[in-house]
Amino acid sequence: MSEAATLTRKADFPGLVTEVGKPWHYLDTAASAQKPQVVVDAMSRALGRDYATVHRGVYGRSARMTLGYEAARRRVADFIGARSENEVVFVRGATEAINLVAAAWGMTRIGQGDRIILSTLEHHSNIVPWQMLAERTGAEIEVCPLTADGQIDLGGLEALLSPRTKLVALAHVSNVLGSVLDARRAAELAHSVGAKILLDGCQAAPRMKLDMAALDCDFYVFSGHKLYGPTGIGVLWAREDILAHMPPYQGGGAMIEKVAFDGTTYAPPPQRFEAGTPMITEAIALHAAIDYVDAFGPDRLFAHEAALAAQLRAELRKLNAVTLFGPEESAGIVSFALDGVHPHDLGTILDEEHVAIRAGHHCAQPLMEHLGVPATTRASFGLYSDEDDIAALMRGIERTRRIFG
Amino acid sequence: MSEAATLTRKADFPGLVTEVGKPWHYLDTAASAQKPQVVVDAMSRALGRDYATVHRGVYGRSARMTLGYEAARRRVADFIGARSENEVVFVRGATEAINLVAAAWGMTRIGQGDRIILSTLEHHSNIVPWQMLAERTGAEIEVCPLTADGQIDLGGLEALLSPRTKLVALAHVSNVLGSVLDARRAAELAHSVGAKILLDGCQAAPRMKLDMAALDCDFYVFSGHKLYGPTGIGVLWAREDILAHMPPYQGGGAMIEKVAFDGTTYAPPPQRFEAGTPMITEAIALHAAIDYVDAFGPDRLFAHEAALAAQLRAELRKLNAVTLFGPEESAGIVSFALDGVHPHDLGTILDEEHVAIRAGHHCAQPLMEHLGVPATTRASFGLYSDEDDIAALMRGIERTRRIFG
Repeated sequence: MSEAATLTRKADFPGLVTEVGKPWHYLDTAASAQKPQVVVDAMSRALGRDYATVHRGVYGRSARMTLGYEAARRRVADFIGARSENEVVFVRGATEAINLVAAAWGMTRIGQGDRIILSTLEHHSNIVPWQMLAERTGAEIEVCPLTADGQIDLGGLEALLSPRTKLVALAHVSNVLGSVLDARRAAELAHSVGAKILLDGCQAAPRMKLDMAALDCDFYVFSGHKLYGPTGIGVLWAREDILAHMPPYQGGGAMIEKVAFDGTTYAPPPQRFEAGTPMITEAIALHAAIDYVDAFGPDRLFAHEAALAAQLRAELRKLNAVTLFGPEESAGIVSFALDGVHPHDLGTILDEEHVAIRAGHHCAQPLMEHLGVPATTRASFGLYSDEDDIAALMRGIERTRRIFG
Repeated sequence: MSEAATLTRKADFPGLVTEVGKPWHYLDTAASAQKPQVVVDAMSRALGRDYATVHRGVYGRSARMTLGYEAARRRVADFIGARSENEVVFVRGATEAINLVAAAWGMTRIGQGDRIILSTLEHHSNIVPWQMLAERTGAEIEVCPLTADGQIDLGGLEALLSPRTKLVALAHVSNVLGSVLDARRAAELAHSVGAKILLDGCQAAPRMKLDMAALDCDFYVFSGHKLYGPTGIGVLWAREDILAHMPPYQGGGAMIEKVAFDGTTYAPPPQRFEAGTPMITEAIALHAAIDYVDAFGPDRLFAHEAALAAQLRAELRKLNAVTLFGPEESAGIVSFALDGVHPHDLGTILDEEHVAIRAGHHCAQPLMEHLGVPATTRASFGLYSDEDDIAALMRGIERTRRIFG
C-alpha cells in the first residue's frame, strides 16, 4: 500500500458511508469530491454562529467575516503559487470562470478572423463559452488533435499556431482520460505567437502541485467542489496585468468605485469581478478544504492516485474483455469499456455493490466522437481512495460479466 | 407584542448570540439574514453523508441528490406562485440574475435608442448591469423620480414611458427606505407601452407573500442569503415564454443538448441557464429556509416587521434629534440620521452594545445623492426581531448622544 494511502483516513469523510452504514466505494471523484468533516464544520460555523456578510459592516462580526473571506483568497493564492492574492477571483465555479474570461477578456481582445485553439478532449465548459464568443466576434475555433494514446498533441498545437491565434485553451488534466498536459510547454508555444493561454485546472488542482509562476500561463481556472470543498465556488486566477485591463463581467454592488447615473467607475481587481454578495461561507469552507488537501501534499496525492490508476489498468487488462482509453500514465482517472456491456448497465450493477462510477459522455462529447463510442465507464480516484475500492470495483465487474455472460 | 413575535424563536438562530454568549441584537437583516439551525443542518447533511453531484450519476445517491435539487426548484416555484418550476432558474445571487437578464435577454432585445427605466432608489445591482448594457447597445437609461417620502413615483414612471421603452427595472421593496412598490400597477404601466418589467425582489421575498401570476411581471429576482438561506444562491424567475426565446448566458456542461465543434445545441429552460455543476447543497439549504419562512407565513412576517419599523420610527422621532428617511409605512427597514453623529461612529458605538446596524450608502449611491447625505444609518428587521432589539438600539443611541453631547 502506498504511503499516502496509509495516511488517508476514510473516516474523515462522512459521505463515504452508504445509507445502510456500509463502506461506499466512491470512484467518481473527478465529477465531484466528497468533503472531509472539517469542511462541513467550517461551513456550519460560518453559516451559524459566525455568520455575517462581508465588506460593508461597521460591526465586529462583519469585519471578522471579511477577514475570513480575504484569508481564503490568500490561502488560494498561496496554494497555487500566485504572485499576489489580487490575482485570485472567486467565482461560482470553473464554468463561470471560463465564461468570465470569454466575455470580459475575449469580447475586448478577440475579433473577426482571430483564432482560438481548443483540443479534442476538452470538457464542454472549455468549448461552449468559446463557441459563443466565436459566434459573437466572428473568430474561428481550431481543434488541436490528440496523440494515439489520448494526450493533447503539442506538435499538432505548434502546427496550428499563427499570428491570428489569440488564445489557446486546454485542459491541464483530461477529465475523461487523466492525460496530463505539459502545460509549461503549451504556454511557451502559445506565447511564441503572442497568444494567451488558459488552462482548465479542474482535475489538476485536486491532484497536482500547482505553481502559477512556473507554469507561466495567463488564465487558470478550477472548481471548489472537485477540490474537496463546497459547491457554488470556484477560482479564476489571472495575471494581475491582464486583470487590470479587463472590463467587468457582471455589474452590481462591491465591484464599483462610484455609481452615478451620469457615469459609474469600477473597483480594481479582484473586486471588479466579484459583483454582489460573494460566496462567503463557501470561501471559508474552501479554505478548510485546501488546508486539508495541502496537509497530504499535492505531489504525494498525485503519486497515490497515479499508482491506483496504474493498478486498476493492470487489473482491467487481465480480464481480456476491456478496452482501455487514454495514456498508461494517468492522473488518477481511468476510462474503459467492458466488452458487450453498456456503461450504464455496468454502473447500475456496480451501484448495487456500493461502488459508484460514472457512465456517460463526461461532458466531453467531441472526445467520445473521437473515441468512436457514445459513452465510457470512468473510475476516478481521490485522496481517500485505496485498494479496497479497486477490489470492490473488480468484484462488481466480475459479477456484471456473469450476469451478461 | 405582536402575534408573530411571540412565535419567533431566537433560539433557532445560532448566529444571534455574541462570541461571549450574550444576545446579539442583529438589525442588519436587509444586508443578509441570519440562518435558522435547520438551514445549517440541511447544508451539513448535503455536504456530508448525502453528498453527490447531480444530473449525471448512474448511482442511487446522485439520483437522490438530483431529486433534492429539483425539489428545491419546485419549492421555490410554489413559494413565489410560479406557474411552473421551469420558470425558476438557480443563479449565484440576485446580482447574477439581473446580469443574466441584461446579457441574455437585453443583448437580443434592446438596441440603439431604446430606453430602460430605473428609479432613483435602485440598488447598484439594478443599475450597473443596465449601464453596461446601455453602453454596449446604445440604449439610454431614464430615471424615474421618487415621491417626497421616498417611494417610486408611478406618475413619474407613466410620464417617462414611450414606445422606445423596452424595460422597466424597479425594486419591489427599497433596501434603504423600505418603500413598497405597487408592483402590479408598475407592471400594467410598463406593459401599456409593450415594455417588459423586472422586479428586484431581494427585500420583498423575505418579507411579503409573492405571487408571480398576480404580479404579472416578466422577470423577478432575489437572493437566497437574504431569505434566511445560504450564500452563493439566488433565483431568477421569468415567464416561460420569455425564457424559451432567450439565448444562453454562460456555456458549459448541463446546459447543452449536444456539443460538437461544428455546432452546439442547447437544452430547454431552465437548464439552458444553469451551466456547470450547480449550487447543489445551496439549493437544498434554500429549500429548508423557505420551509422555515413559509411556516411563519409571509403576510404575518410583513405585519410583524412593519409594526417594528413603525415602533422604531416613533421612538426615534421622540428624540427630536433624528432625521427619518422614507415613508411612514415601511417593510421593516428604517433609515435615519442622528444629528451631529456620523453613521459610522454610531455604528461603532452600537457594536459595543451588541447592536448591529448598517452605516453607509447601502449600495445605493444615487439615492444618497438624492437624499443629500453621504450615508445613512439603517436598522432592518427580520422574523427573529423583537422589541428587545429596538430597546437595545435606543439605549445605544442614548449612550451615543451622551458621548457626542
